[in-house]
Amino acid sequence: MTRDSDVSFLEDFHAVAQIGATPAHGVDRQAATAADRETREWFRAFAEQRGWETRVDSIGNQFALVELVPGAPYVLLGSHLDSQPLGGRFDGAYGVIAGLHAAERIAARAVSATAGPVYNVAVVNWFNEEGGRFAPSIMGSSVFAGIKNEQEMLEVRDLSGISVREALAGIGYLGTDERPVVSAYAEIHIEQGRILEREGLTIGAVDRSWYTQKLDIEVLGEQSHTGATAMADRHDALLGAAKVIAKVHEVTDLFEPETLVSSVGQLTLEPNSPIVVARRVHLIADLRADDAATVLAARDQLLADVTEIADAYGLTINARDFDVRDNQHYPESGLALAEAAAAELGLGSRRIRTMAGHDSVAMNRIVPTVMLFVPSVDGVSHCEREFTRDEDMVEGVAMLAEVGWRLAHGALQAEDAGLSGTSATAAAHA
Amino acid sequence: MTRDSDVSFLEDFHAVAQIGATPAHGVDRQAATAADRETREWFRAFAEQRGWETRVDSIGNQFALVELVPGAPYVLLGSHLDSQPLGGRFDGAYGVIAGLHAAERIAARAVSATAGPVYNVAVVNWFNEEGGRFAPSIMGSSVFAGIKNEQEMLEVRDLSGISVREALAGIGYLGTDERPVVSAYAEIHIEQGRILEREGLTIGAVDRSWYTQKLDIEVLGEQSHTGATAMADRHDALLGAAKVIAKVHEVTDLFEPETLVSSVGQLTLEPNSPIVVARRVHLIADLRADDAATVLAARDQLLADVTEIADAYGLTINARDFDVRDNQHYPESGLALAEAAAAELGLGSRRIRTMAGHDSVAMNRIVPTVMLFVPSVDGVSHCEREFTRDEDMVEGVAMLAEVGWRLAHGALQAEDAGLSGTSATAAAHA
Repeated sequence: MTRDSDVSFLEDFHAVAQIGATPAHGVDRQAATAADRETREWFRAFAEQRGWETRVDSIGNQFALVELVPGAPYVLLGSHLDSQPLGGRFDGAYGVIAGLHAAERIAARAVSATAGPVYNVAVVNWFNEEGGRFAPSIMGSSVFAGIKNEQEMLEVRDLSGISVREALAGIGYLGTDERPVVSAYAEIHIEQGRILEREGLTIGAVDRSWYTQKLDIEVLGEQSHTGATAMADRHDALLGAAKVIAKVHEVTDLFEPETLVSSVGQLTLEPNSPIVVARRVHLIADLRADDAATVLAARDQLLADVTEIADAYGLTINARDFDVRDNQHYPESGLALAEAAAAELGLGSRRIRTMAGHDSVAMNRIVPTVMLFVPSVDGVSHCEREFTRDEDMVEGVAMLAEVGWRLAHGALQAEDAGLSGTSATAAAHA
Repeated sequence: MTRDSDVSFLEDFHAVAQIGATPAHGVDRQAATAADRETREWFRAFAEQRGWETRVDSIGNQFALVELVPGAPYVLLGSHLDSQPLGGRFDGAYGVIAGLHAAERIAARAVSATAGPVYNVAVVNWFNEEGGRFAPSIMGSSVFAGIKNEQEMLEVRDLSGISVREALAGIGYLGTDERPVVSAYAEIHIEQGRILEREGLTIGAVDRSWYTQKLDIEVLGEQSHTGATAMADRHDALLGAAKVIAKVHEVTDLFEPETLVSSVGQLTLEPNSPIVVARRVHLIADLRADDAATVLAARDQLLADVTEIADAYGLTINARDFDVRDNQHYPESGLALAEAAAAELGLGSRRIRTMAGHDSVAMNRIVPTVMLFVPSVDGVSHCEREFTRDEDMVEGVAMLAEVGWRLAHGALQAEDAGLSGTSATAAAHA
């Protein structure tokens, strides 16, 4: 790659960061909003300017196809351009824009290479990775991978009652195009943790994802007057919810430090009037650990806590498991490939776990997948001060282009066939 | 009164309960909504059918004027037709419909009375007593009494950003009519407590209101990823809010049972996404006690608690006093009048305090005021199962008509002049 191509990448990255920009340098581009549409128009223009075909599937995933080997399956690179409300400008967007630039470099390199690619390259902007507006998250890639039902996902509604189907149609991105056949997937993302920064390394090769689950909790009390109801006569759903929220936090103290993360981020309160004791609170708890047994133990403890809270305050509390995601192990062959690529580029790397979910977790279910991290300053994410340095982003694009190049030569298919015999499975899934 | 007039009252009461009716026998008629408009049309039709003048003032208070003594001030009877979201069908509506029927009976009695009234009679439907949609509550009567600024109140906005001015104009009830000159005020309301029911009495004569205040509390944290942020790195505004909510409840344990009520009924959460640690929670705590010192001590304790919570969880918490209402003592002469009226009608009565706020609390600041209660089954209110028996409502209408009759003869003005020399003050205020 050249210095010009790095400048071009950075210009594109910082231009996209202006779409849905917030005053404190973040972005607000929730799925299927006007700002999300605007990033999609940008993605399409990038591809069309290079003569690449673009497609949109029936769950709003957007593809740019770079044909190198007519009729061959595609090595897919990408991530998502949607964000959390007041989210950061790196999460997701970096991976898509890096993917577009990596694809361009792979295409350029193929022109003069003695051994050309055996697969095509494509870039994807997955629909609704964040799940801030429409739950569950990782929606578009999960439908693509066949682990979520498309019709059910299209009927999911946001808090104002608008469905995924309506929202996608509203921005003109409820597509009908055929999905590309994929042979491998690679994604690069900011770490959202402090490990790479602390160790002074540029690249993380993700070996597995944490075990995660959500608990959907409904606290039912009785509406009454905050002024005129004796304390003993109250069935205060918000008080019960407050006790649940505290327990969801405190359960992490029962385990080794930082082995479990657990919190409540979403809550709706009815009727939400200053002088009315609440009748109903609905909230979602998010539990994650590397070790599945830790999450399950925490969940069991919380279910016991919830029963105690219901009894103590005269409430009914319904809790159900939701969005359970097992540990996903990325293939050993992909890790070795990433380590070799980093070594060739002279980039420091290490294996790393992901606590956050990513589209690659879904894709890893159906094709050989490589998941890469670059450093996050202070490890913060899902907020406006999320930050990754330009130098690290530029190194990451080079890394993704190298990984993509090797994948386009069938690296994982060949290695898997030799090492573990999974190529038939991968091909069948693809 | 006759059995016919009781039937007529009950028919009207149960007809109005159908406006904005909810499936579980409550009503949802928040201030300046379509359902609120519909009750106002009903009120106007009731007055017009009897040839009474109707007026709407510039904060949406609605009046029906029964002229008995041309040019004289008015004895005002009434309450409010707005409700909480999923509120009860008795709170407020009973007092307005009782007021209309009492006024009709007073007018009929005046025709044949040997000593006619010296004041006129009017009925009022106060705007936004509940405060569920627009805070503060008791809005229309407080503006009428001059204790809230009308222009400020017209600029108050609901959670969706609509102002009082816009909402009133939207339902056609931002009026321009002159306010009637008032000599005295009487209101009847359901008790919203268990005392009358427990003692088998029909009438409560309210001697004073509880001291009340709200605390407006803003909890500021930092938005971050629920999955990828180490527990130690979090500044979780919702966790802080949950601790505050628990403290607002637990502070009542520091005082004698049932001397203090305290709770949080309203809360907004930002950004309210399942996988984002919250950056901001705004909530309102409501504290009430008969003894002002109890509320002040509880408030001081909560401010100390809030500081501790902010320190413990790395948050900023801003708390400010809001909507402070001193004890209001209803005049002794009015209590004696109510007791005499109850005795004449053969109704059991007692003096009673009100924990809830009422429009009469505002009116008592400017004119001699009588506040009456009828029993509430189980003491519940601000909920769909709020209930008062037909027999008790009917006795209450007779009571209000008797009290109104005496007020229209200048009972409080004469007594005050004799007993305490406050008639000049009352007249000046009126």
